[in-house]
Amino acid sequence: MRDVSRIVVVGGSAAGPKAAAKARRINSHAEIVILQKDPDLSMASCGYPYYVSGVIDDRNLLLSTGTGVTRDPRYYREAKAIEARTNTEVTDISPARHVVSYRNLLTGETGTLNYDKLIIATGSIPRMPPVPGTDLRGVTTLQSMKDVDFLRRVRDERKAGKAVVVGGGLIGVETCEALRLAGIEVTIVELVPQLLAFLDWELAKLVENHVRSKGVNVITGSRVAGFLGDNGALTGVTLGDGTEILCELAVVAVGVEPNSELARRAGLEIGVTGGIAVNEYLQTSDPDIYAAGDCIETVNLITGKKVHAPYGDLANLQGRVAGRNAASENRAVFKGTIQTGICKVFDFSAGSTGLSERSAEKNGLVDSIPLITAGGDKPGYMNGQLLVTKLLADRTTGRILGAQCVGPGNVGKQIAQWAMAIQGGLSVEDLVNADLPYAPPFSPAIDHFITTAHVMQNKMENRFTGISSLAVKEKLDRGERPVLLDVRDLDEFKTTRLGIGETLIPLDDLREKAKELPEDKDKEIISYCAVSMRGYEAALALAALGWRNVKVMEGGIAAWPFSKEK
Amino acid sequence: MRDVSRIVVVGGSAAGPKAAAKARRINSHAEIVILQKDPDLSMASCGYPYYVSGVIDDRNLLLSTGTGVTRDPRYYREAKAIEARTNTEVTDISPARHVVSYRNLLTGETGTLNYDKLIIATGSIPRMPPVPGTDLRGVTTLQSMKDVDFLRRVRDERKAGKAVVVGGGLIGVETCEALRLAGIEVTIVELVPQLLAFLDWELAKLVENHVRSKGVNVITGSRVAGFLGDNGALTGVTLGDGTEILCELAVVAVGVEPNSELARRAGLEIGVTGGIAVNEYLQTSDPDIYAAGDCIETVNLITGKKVHAPYGDLANLQGRVAGRNAASENRAVFKGTIQTGICKVFDFSAGSTGLSERSAEKNGLVDSIPLITAGGDKPGYMNGQLLVTKLLADRTTGRILGAQCVGPGNVGKQIAQWAMAIQGGLSVEDLVNADLPYAPPFSPAIDHFITTAHVMQNKMENRFTGISSLAVKEKLDRGERPVLLDVRDLDEFKTTRLGIGETLIPLDDLREKAKELPEDKDKEIISYCAVSMRGYEAALALAALGWRNVKVMEGGIAAWPFSKEK
Repeated sequence: MRDVSRIVVVGGSAAGPKAAAKARRINSHAEIVILQKDPDLSMASCGYPYYVSGVIDDRNLLLSTGTGVTRDPRYYREAKAIEARTNTEVTDISPARHVVSYRNLLTGETGTLNYDKLIIATGSIPRMPPVPGTDLRGVTTLQSMKDVDFLRRVRDERKAGKAVVVGGGLIGVETCEALRLAGIEVTIVELVPQLLAFLDWELAKLVENHVRSKGVNVITGSRVAGFLGDNGALTGVTLGDGTEILCELAVVAVGVEPNSELARRAGLEIGVTGGIAVNEYLQTSDPDIYAAGDCIETVNLITGKKVHAPYGDLANLQGRVAGRNAASENRAVFKGTIQTGICKVFDFSAGSTGLSERSAEKNGLVDSIPLITAGGDKPGYMNGQLLVTKLLADRTTGRILGAQCVGPGNVGKQIAQWAMAIQGGLSVEDLVNADLPYAPPFSPAIDHFITTAHVMQNKMENRFTGISSLAVKEKLDRGERPVLLDVRDLDEFKTTRLGIGETLIPLDDLREKAKELPEDKDKEIISYCAVSMRGYEAALALAALGWRNVKVMEGGIAAWPFSKEK
Repeated sequence: MRDVSRIVVVGGSAAGPKAAAKARRINSHAEIVILQKDPDLSMASCGYPYYVSGVIDDRNLLLSTGTGVTRDPRYYREAKAIEARTNTEVTDISPARHVVSYRNLLTGETGTLNYDKLIIATGSIPRMPPVPGTDLRGVTTLQSMKDVDFLRRVRDERKAGKAVVVGGGLIGVETCEALRLAGIEVTIVELVPQLLAFLDWELAKLVENHVRSKGVNVITGSRVAGFLGDNGALTGVTLGDGTEILCELAVVAVGVEPNSELARRAGLEIGVTGGIAVNEYLQTSDPDIYAAGDCIETVNLITGKKVHAPYGDLANLQGRVAGRNAASENRAVFKGTIQTGICKVFDFSAGSTGLSERSAEKNGLVDSIPLITAGGDKPGYMNGQLLVTKLLADRTTGRILGAQCVGPGNVGKQIAQWAMAIQGGLSVEDLVNADLPYAPPFSPAIDHFITTAHVMQNKMENRFTGISSLAVKEKLDRGERPVLLDVRDLDEFKTTRLGIGETLIPLDDLREKAKELPEDKDKEIISYCAVSMRGYEAALALAALGWRNVKVMEGGIAAWPFSKEK
């Protein structure tokens, strides 16, 4: 191995500083230089919405270590023996000469720097819709500290009464919450027919219902046609159908693209997603150049396909791998992602790991079986909060392909459990007796995760015939008239009910009152309750009484995403 | 398969009702009878401490479904078509004749009942220390609703000013919290030198420090010699060393034993732990008799050894397996446990999964490597709370053998992640790039779980030389004088410090002030900070400067279980 005497890192947000720090820990003698275009280093960009909303009031918290030390060039020099140059844009890379060219954005000074190993961590750039008016004052993204400072000023000086958030993805909904908490009237406009595209429609709709309940105006399936202005300042947004929404603020969050232009110009191979192509050592097509973070493309470990996965945690993990390999030799590997993600929006959390049903279909994984369940994250007597989960398993092997979870309950733990189950290659059969930490302050005796595995096992072994709320709604919209059987108690029915032509027969009375049901034993019956545990018992009881076409509406009323009578 | 026409279940707490319900769902025609000695059915026994403390005020919540229906014989009959007979003690089982004999504890009436399949779920019985006075009024366990009602009356009527909890296990510490919250002065007495024997000493001591900070008197390594009384009522407890503790209440929680006497008398095979021996179908030595819950013995999946594992979640999971197999044929399996457990005690949680270092040693697994780490459960700017973890991995394969975690942070999620990692057979190498759900309200960008895997990887690859706080303390007690190097900042040092003869050199100044350290490059130096991340950086910096014997104190001050100067 040739001795590495200088490692240059391009980019100082997440992956870059992590790579530099790891390289220093691996290699105590090499010179390590970070070239960072922005004025700040190692910004906690995932925390931006929480400063905009006022959850955090100290701006420096976004830029400092846990003990309050600002991660500035002095910190990098003294604590880590790393030279960090801010306001320094790399303008060119010459792989042949092992040289980068840079320009100081404050002084205009230019220069070059030799490297033995280079690490590219240029991150991502926010997409902008190709419509007029994006340059108006009041139109912004939430990508940089400059954006953050602008939005925080809007909050503090109460500069905006109305805002439009363009894009209903993860950043969009977090921004929506932040603005709403800042007292701003918010409309969120999303091109596709749902928020949070990493979820399947039914679960996304539950989140949307919650967001609406907080006074946010949600418009899905609608295109922004342009931004309207007066004297250079934003006055409104027009939609594809001509609707105009008045607003003084618009935050664009329609996704990001890998910032791979510098790498492309240097002749490095770019992948199909537009991200820099790397091998599992995070080495680019030039063996002396590594890349990490939002600028690269990686592999979805379930489908085997290349993906752009701009997640903050992966950027850090990749930085660690690239830094280690650049500083010594290729030892550490980053194999890919199962695209685990989560967000909080008001009192709900929404998370996903592995494949959604839609992404499985898109990837040609048709031999999969979906299931929706609902339940509490703790026992009822400990004030358990609701969780709604959608699980996807391979029909043949039972292997877990993906899981999504939304609700006011502890979604983070559920998704973490599913993520580890997927990474361990576990199947439904492995999970039905999972040994998880149980005590009443933490979970029900049988955790919602395990209950979900139980129901999936029942479904795979044909003891449980489920139907999704979406499929029920489609049946009704087509004019089909199955017997809709609500098996909750009368007082529950009085408090809340679907109002879709259902019959109420409480489970306790079912064996006695079954004669009220149609005599035709082939008539389709769809039973449900609050979460469909009793709905399942009812279906079994009816089957025992001879009915042959009984289904259970999965997740019951908790997972019903449409409007309810009550 | 012979048709099953009657299934009898002995026991109506957790495993029994679960087995009966599952049997019903599998088999719609068989008669299913639960014979339950207690007056109640399906009691949420893990919730008892929360009713005693007043966290729950409605007693019926411990006995009812999520929708408030009491799980009484009427409920079992109407909702589940199961006959449940309460106050009915099974006095004898005749496997040869397929008959159980019972006695009604209220009426004295006796009778017999034939079965095709029998499921024994007789639970556990609390151990009582073999000392005088256990029959005094005021001495109780926390095992039955009768105990619960007694303790709740003590709380409500302010009948006790002082209490002793005998036993510092899971139930002991939960009871201790419950009594303290009820305004009672509590002393907890534990035979072995630590609370919570499922933890290793260093982590248990952190919990003990927290329990003490709540005003509880903790006495470890001490035997209860007897209970003192006056006129049949408890007045105090004497310890092995003669100490007398005045109290009007004593709760004994020194563990439980499998209640396997009925099975033993029926000639069924009893295992080495005293639990009923079962195969992986939970079938006893008689093929028509199954057993589940606290009365059986199961297998530790890591050591392969038989264990008694009386956990509420496992009882439910085993009930499901036994119920299914008894109702049709042997299809479902219960392979064993990794002994995952957790409890909350005041503002701390403490959990464990897999093996502790001590249990690994006991089981002859000597080729394992332990590590202690500390960190936040969320980013500092989101008010992250501390977690202290002890991880055990196989030295050769890196496979995770066990993990423990304590602290005010989200211990439940950490233990759940480790439990799934162990069940997936994952190694440290698999976990360093784990793809977990990250957003600031849920975790730091690199979750504490992954950071722990990173440090373990560094330790296994000899980039990190750790030493536990316990080993440091032993060194000092032996009179060794290593250089103890605290690398935090001065203001942190002013607020809290160990006071063990340490030198303060903040990490930022270390490269400059290293000359203040001993010239002897073989002198032992032990560096640390709040959690020892900076301690690790310091060790690397010193190694680069030529020192050859530098160790990092694992977990830093956060994991220091001994008294501190400040």
